[in-house]
Amino acid sequence: MDLVTLDDVRGAADAIAGRVVRTPLLPCRWDDRLYLKPESLQPVGSFKLRGATNAISRLTAEQRARGVVTHSSGNHGQALAWAAAAAGIPCVVVIPEGAPAIKIEQVRRLGAEVILVDHARRLAEAERVVARTGATLVPPYDDRRIIAGQGTIGLEIVADLPDLAVVLVPVGGGGLASGVSTAVKALRPEVTVIGVEPDLAADAHASLTAGELVIWEPELTYRTSADGLRTNLSELTLAHLRERLDGIVTVTEDEIREALARLARDSRLVVEPSGAVAPAAALFRAADLPTGPTVAVVTGGNIEPARLTEALTAPLTAPLTAPPAG
Amino acid sequence: MDLVTLDDVRGAADAIAGRVVRTPLLPCRWDDRLYLKPESLQPVGSFKLRGATNAISRLTAEQRARGVVTHSSGNHGQALAWAAAAAGIPCVVVIPEGAPAIKIEQVRRLGAEVILVDHARRLAEAERVVARTGATLVPPYDDRRIIAGQGTIGLEIVADLPDLAVVLVPVGGGGLASGVSTAVKALRPEVTVIGVEPDLAADAHASLTAGELVIWEPELTYRTSADGLRTNLSELTLAHLRERLDGIVTVTEDEIREALARLARDSRLVVEPSGAVAPAAALFRAADLPTGPTVAVVTGGNIEPARLTEALTAPLTAPLTAPPAG
Repeated sequence: MDLVTLDDVRGAADAIAGRVVRTPLLPCRWDDRLYLKPESLQPVGSFKLRGATNAISRLTAEQRARGVVTHSSGNHGQALAWAAAAAGIPCVVVIPEGAPAIKIEQVRRLGAEVILVDHARRLAEAERVVARTGATLVPPYDDRRIIAGQGTIGLEIVADLPDLAVVLVPVGGGGLASGVSTAVKALRPEVTVIGVEPDLAADAHASLTAGELVIWEPELTYRTSADGLRTNLSELTLAHLRERLDGIVTVTEDEIREALARLARDSRLVVEPSGAVAPAAALFRAADLPTGPTVAVVTGGNIEPARLTEALTAPLTAPLTAPPAG
Repeated sequence: MDLVTLDDVRGAADAIAGRVVRTPLLPCRWDDRLYLKPESLQPVGSFKLRGATNAISRLTAEQRARGVVTHSSGNHGQALAWAAAAAGIPCVVVIPEGAPAIKIEQVRRLGAEVILVDHARRLAEAERVVARTGATLVPPYDDRRIIAGQGTIGLEIVADLPDLAVVLVPVGGGGLASGVSTAVKALRPEVTVIGVEPDLAADAHASLTAGELVIWEPELTYRTSADGLRTNLSELTLAHLRERLDGIVTVTEDEIREALARLARDSRLVVEPSGAVAPAAALFRAADLPTGPTVAVVTGGNIEPARLTEALTAPLTAPLTAPPAG
């Protein structure tokens, strides 16, 4: 299978420059070897804006006139709606009936058309839109343009931290981990790139162990609070991860909740559960990780205020590391 | 009076490069002309790290050996402790008895010596430390090195937003506003730089109106939740603001609280009340401000979790602006 290359990622970086936030690395007060890459600060609240913006930049003039469509109700749907509005092209987002009203409203406010359908008919409906309007389907992760766009995070990490040793990157559908590992391993093969999953949605770990795609059904993956990481890998993302990822660690729901609270209290970031898994691995899986300067990708910050307040009021249990900066 | 110059600010930028976070400008989902400069993301949670780091960089080898001292229990004390630890030099922070235990603990964890004294004896105690140890006193704002350091925020804003029209900057002791207005007005005289104060601590507004230093006593300024903005100007900062600031707007406590909640919900930033006043001005004083691309400096994020949850659970009342990005 043809994998995404460093050149693809560099092309994406050129395409999205000035259209997404160039996030800094944030030193952590609680661990002097740890840096956060806060993609929660993108205007739609997640890294998904990178892939969506790159995908749209690749469209021909004719394709642009016909617009784009996707079937993600989550961060990718919002990201595509934002990127389409920024490019001035039409966008349709197919959302399952029963999705939170706030998510539907946010996509509509970005100017996208929303089509509500039964959950099982999402993909079919998106394909119907393609057939009817000629719009280009932009899937959330199973796509080389998306993988290349998310990989720009890896380029920025390497540029910003010369003595980088470890990158911790969440794995849901695997687009982000595929892109980041592509960029980091091509530029700095000696750096360790580790995927992070919730225990309750560890399908990528299972797939990499088995050497083939292992599907976890929604009955399993919907147990985790990290809603952005319930998705399974695709053949395309599995192929990237088999070749380029050094391993996967998993974290518990308690660890995710505690990392989320820590990020709000000590790093002043509002983060969603999926966005807290990589810092959770740094906090609670240090014994399983190589030492040295580590970057944890904080993928998103779209969390209900009630959920955030719940995490903020729970007591912290993790050990504190003394933080001299020098 | 000798004012800080653009060259001073440029020198500070060289001195602090790589030692503080180069914060990005964040587009706002709720106002497509507004950008946030999130200094809350500095490792000690506020812009104060810039001035403190610059002040320490100016010390001679002999001064470095004797260390630094300050008498701020707030963000400047933490910033100086961090910058001193990073430079490997001794630091003493004089803190008034009765200060929150968490603040004392944070300064101690950064390796600084803490001296607890009665509130009224803070400055005298710091001067006693100077006399005893030869340490250099680094005041929180009434200091050219501090003003130059905070001014680096202005350089970055100008570099990052070519069509900049308005800068909104909080005014407490005036060090930040002095530095930012120095940099912005030197490089882009046509840009409007506006100070923002709480209604309940509008001493800078009073001073600029009177043309001389007007002191508001603690009985007045301690009414505002924006604890970082209770300080009065000094003759030095007043001189800068008279020459370089285009005006001041004030905001209410309700407006500060609502901006704080908006920043957490829609910009995914944990911000303290002082850090929310500039976005509050953008939200609620648009009629008093020039139009065009606007940057609001978000100065800090050191807030008690209970305070944040309180703001998050209050209802929002401000009008929403539709946010097309393109």
